Amino acid sequence: MDLLKEKIIKEGIVESGGVLRVDNFLNHRLDIEFINEVGLYFKSIFQDRNINKILTIESSGIAIATITAQYLHVPVVFAKKNIHVNLPNDVYVEEVKSSTADENNIIVVSKEMLSPEDNILIVDDFLAKGNALKALITMVEHAGGKIEGVGIVIEKLFQGGGDEIRNMGIDLVSLAKIESMDDGKIIFRD
Amino acid sequence: MDLLKEKIIKEGIVESGGVLRVDNFLNHRLDIEFINEVGLYFKSIFQDRNINKILTIESSGIAIATITAQYLHVPVVFAKKNIHVNLPNDVYVEEVKSSTADENNIIVVSKEMLSPEDNILIVDDFLAKGNALKALITMVEHAGGKIEGVGIVIEKLFQGGGDEIRNMGIDLVSLAKIESMDDGKIIFRD
Repeated sequence: MDLLKEKIIKEGIVESGGVLRVDNFLNHRLDIEFINEVGLYFKSIFQDRNINKILTIESSGIAIATITAQYLHVPVVFAKKNIHVNLPNDVYVEEVKSSTADENNIIVVSKEMLSPEDNILIVDDFLAKGNALKALITMVEHAGGKIEGVGIVIEKLFQGGGDEIRNMGIDLVSLAKIESMDDGKIIFRD
Repeated sequence: MDLLKEKIIKEGIVESGGVLRVDNFLNHRLDIEFINEVGLYFKSIFQDRNINKILTIESSGIAIATITAQYLHVPVVFAKKNIHVNLPNDVYVEEVKSSTADENNIIVVSKEMLSPEDNILIVDDFLAKGNALKALITMVEHAGGKIEGVGIVIEKLFQGGGDEIRNMGIDLVSLAKIESMDDGKIIFRD
């Protein structure tokens, strides 16, 4: 997706530890016209898959999921990080090692939000080591649902998560694949 | 908004401590068709205000802000809760007492995301004591921007935050106003 690569080059900030900061359009300020293009792109790829639900994780996945859901005419479920007082008792819980923070996160989805009849599209902003994504996949499997596909905006190939997920037989689509960011220079793989 | 009142009556769960759980359409599962109606409603109210940015707070405000922003053709900025490793140094920070959890939250917005030229619409899912909303208002004031209006989906009148905000001279619109939830019975005010 050329528009995305241009935005990453122009607005992205490479930080130490393999961190790419895209606060200006995806992680803090949301460029809604751009995210609309992301939603349209995911629609074009996944519209024939009989998807009935989009699953994502708070917070940056929510806007992408929301707009994609408008095009696919399905609801969104977002996994919650950490423990919320307002959550019901009957939940799926997975521990997720964060790739950008030291402490691990707990992510939670209420069991009533997933079912064996689900044909799920998972979407998220970033894929690095894939820990959050693997946790979401595990939850869908526990619920007996089917994962029809995964749509990622930015995949950092050099952190290996995407290969692991593809090796699980899951149809994973990333709109931009970053091969390396050494010395602040972003190299994409086509 | 009659559709919202119907959904609250049908799908809302009243819990102790003045908590209304609407996980099924607004706080965990997102009913995108319904949130589209919310966005259209906010558009009808705020479209003539020359708004250039929508401000909200993660996580449940993001979907509402995203869809409203599509109709107003503006970007969204969402405040982040707690401290994130990826945030830049130059930030507005406010402490927010949570009305549903014991501990206080820190909410953060990068200074570069707000400016004196801003005409801002703030949107959020719930208004109870108004602590998070007051923190967002303070940030906009520190940045020298103008608040054109506030759009709330569900206001719990009995927790008083809305009256405080209106007394500040801010144009606050709530789509459903709950007067009381005693014994689990939800009474709306028209």
